[in-house]
Amino acid sequence: MPKASLTQAAAALARRLDRLARVSEERGVTTRTFMSPAMRRANALVGRFMKAAGLSVRVDPVGNLIGRTRAPARGAKTLLMGSHLDTVRDAGRFDGALGVLLPIAALEVARGRGIVLPFAVEVLGFSEEEGVRFSSGYLGSKGYAGRLGKLDLRLRDSRGITVREVLAKSNRGRFSPPAPAHSRGELIGYLEVHIEQGPVLEALGLAAGVVSAIAGQTRARVAFLGKAGHAGTTPMALRRDALAGAAEFILAAEALARARPPLVTTVGRIEARPGTANVIAGAAELSLDVRHPVDAQRLAACAGLRKAGRLIAVRRDLGFSMEVTQDNGAVSCSRELSSILAGIVRRHEGRCVALASGAGHDGVIISSLAPVAMLFVRCRGGLSHSPGESVSRGDLKAALRIVVDFLARLASRHAK
Amino acid sequence: MPKASLTQAAAALARRLDRLARVSEERGVTTRTFMSPAMRRANALVGRFMKAAGLSVRVDPVGNLIGRTRAPARGAKTLLMGSHLDTVRDAGRFDGALGVLLPIAALEVARGRGIVLPFAVEVLGFSEEEGVRFSSGYLGSKGYAGRLGKLDLRLRDSRGITVREVLAKSNRGRFSPPAPAHSRGELIGYLEVHIEQGPVLEALGLAAGVVSAIAGQTRARVAFLGKAGHAGTTPMALRRDALAGAAEFILAAEALARARPPLVTTVGRIEARPGTANVIAGAAELSLDVRHPVDAQRLAACAGLRKAGRLIAVRRDLGFSMEVTQDNGAVSCSRELSSILAGIVRRHEGRCVALASGAGHDGVIISSLAPVAMLFVRCRGGLSHSPGESVSRGDLKAALRIVVDFLARLASRHAK
Repeated sequence: MPKASLTQAAAALARRLDRLARVSEERGVTTRTFMSPAMRRANALVGRFMKAAGLSVRVDPVGNLIGRTRAPARGAKTLLMGSHLDTVRDAGRFDGALGVLLPIAALEVARGRGIVLPFAVEVLGFSEEEGVRFSSGYLGSKGYAGRLGKLDLRLRDSRGITVREVLAKSNRGRFSPPAPAHSRGELIGYLEVHIEQGPVLEALGLAAGVVSAIAGQTRARVAFLGKAGHAGTTPMALRRDALAGAAEFILAAEALARARPPLVTTVGRIEARPGTANVIAGAAELSLDVRHPVDAQRLAACAGLRKAGRLIAVRRDLGFSMEVTQDNGAVSCSRELSSILAGIVRRHEGRCVALASGAGHDGVIISSLAPVAMLFVRCRGGLSHSPGESVSRGDLKAALRIVVDFLARLASRHAK
Repeated sequence: MPKASLTQAAAALARRLDRLARVSEERGVTTRTFMSPAMRRANALVGRFMKAAGLSVRVDPVGNLIGRTRAPARGAKTLLMGSHLDTVRDAGRFDGALGVLLPIAALEVARGRGIVLPFAVEVLGFSEEEGVRFSSGYLGSKGYAGRLGKLDLRLRDSRGITVREVLAKSNRGRFSPPAPAHSRGELIGYLEVHIEQGPVLEALGLAAGVVSAIAGQTRARVAFLGKAGHAGTTPMALRRDALAGAAEFILAAEALARARPPLVTTVGRIEARPGTANVIAGAAELSLDVRHPVDAQRLAACAGLRKAGRLIAVRRDLGFSMEVTQDNGAVSCSRELSSILAGIVRRHEGRCVALASGAGHDGVIISSLAPVAMLFVRCRGGLSHSPGESVSRGDLKAALRIVVDFLARLASRHAK
């Protein structure tokens, strides 16, 4: 009874998503950051799900959870499916987790249906995508793709600890950046299933859609340096207030993006030091996130904001720095894999829309290793990065069916 | 040898200030916040200095350190001298500490000179003045003066713990706000010695000056409430960015004060939540500090900023609140005590300037209990609330001489 088993599998998937959401480093909310004890517990839990699906499980030196089916023959190719297991602070149940747990469920359904895969499958739970701890994301997929560079390893968290130090500790002192997990020729491709994080599918009444491209993204750490001083005894004219400079920068970034849609700019994190009510801020540090589907537009926006920051600093007699911590170009998805996926979506949903992703995804990094396809799943209100993330049981089932069919289609292609 | 002993006492005072600066809750810098283990250690250290000077020592239920000389006769009056032992984060050695340790040294010198005081002296080390932990200062002096109110006790620190809870814990579950430590008739007055925290004495080449009045001060906790959202998928037009609203408010506060000197406004603390680079801030909270020597001007500025915040919130579809956590009117110092002090300063320095204090001081609160006098001591570059605070050895000695003479003058007055 394939239909019944799909319903059951979707219900089991929903339970697993709930269970994973309770694995957190903060009481009462879902938060899992890079290399935290919560991430180790998440890897252990999802590893058990993988084993139950017949996968062999390991964790690589960067903390990625890797579940692999037995290769059907020597020299058989590998299909990658996955997403990330880390989260933002106070996150929802679906962003990342869906793209790891749904493929496991799909493999279970496929096995139940007797679908024989003529290739190996690796299900990947990346250890870091959100950039919470180090203000720079993709550490997991970069490690997997052999793209973890010196600049990544030098990133520091809020306590001054570097990525290199964190990884050295977790690898008992012996860490060197891993080589790519695969050569490009070994791989069929990479499929990432993710909630849409936008309103289009909901507006069109569709359970799922196929991603055509992922917007490019720049992240930077912006700092203004002034002079701390007494809030009561320093006249306004003599102040060099770093936080006031930062406030001007926040508004400049907002104004630029408002003037140039679909550009989006965000300052989500700010710190003033010493950070006391009665002391003028001597230093202010903030995060900057800039995204645009066209790389040239994004780079022009970043250059414009750097110039704006310098002008603010000159006018206020402040120091200014803008350090780019992440710079990812826009990524086009694989035409071949996307067209297979789109055909399946069309059959089940009646139509298939091509979506541009404003959010970055692990596929951005894995595109250096394999052709990438992404399936977006409808989410209520387009909401993500929030405990209010919601995907209906019906949509979970629809997405699961699409991925099972995708596996079956690839199986028949590669069996030829 | 009075002259030699003054030099020695100033050197000993400098050593004690250095030693106290090493008592901290943060490694490598000086930070002591209300009811922290560091404050307990500071009370223990300064308590030993007090005992060495012949004072009997106790800590009151609010954590104030109180050292008292033996009353020379039944019904003898009491002179208060003191300041606070808490500090801002990454503080200097003098702000607060000088006003506690210098009176101890002065009593030692006076005793060495055989000066008999016909009144008791209490040296006070207040437990809280800076407002670091609860965004509202004077908790120590308010406790001493019997002015700790319900609103004070309900204040919460960044972890949500109230002042009442902190005090209940430190008093083994039994805490009720103390009555005033003295009735007004029992007291001769209160003398606070403090670094100037401004450039006037340095510019005039004077070691010390007498404070005529202390500016009024309002502190408030300002919050903007928006909606968290994904930094990549939420178009600018649909955002309700609380941090962008806060940035506008910071600039509005700055512009208001620039337009109306000697008004000063400061936002020194800001927090965006969830505080992640790739999430639009759903909430932003900031501190506001407003000071003016004229109460009506200060209150008008606060009303103007409340209105500005509301307008920003309406325009951006945000929630807004501005909760006043502290509101202290300007305080005039005692003419009688100040004129005694000014006479002594004039004799030693050649002239005496009357200074208005832009900073608040414990004297603001103690003025409800006793006539207040304040001696300002020259500090390098007018710097305070910074590890760069500096008072020369010569100026320490000059200030010590002035306070010893002040004790002697009061002794001869009250002996009559």
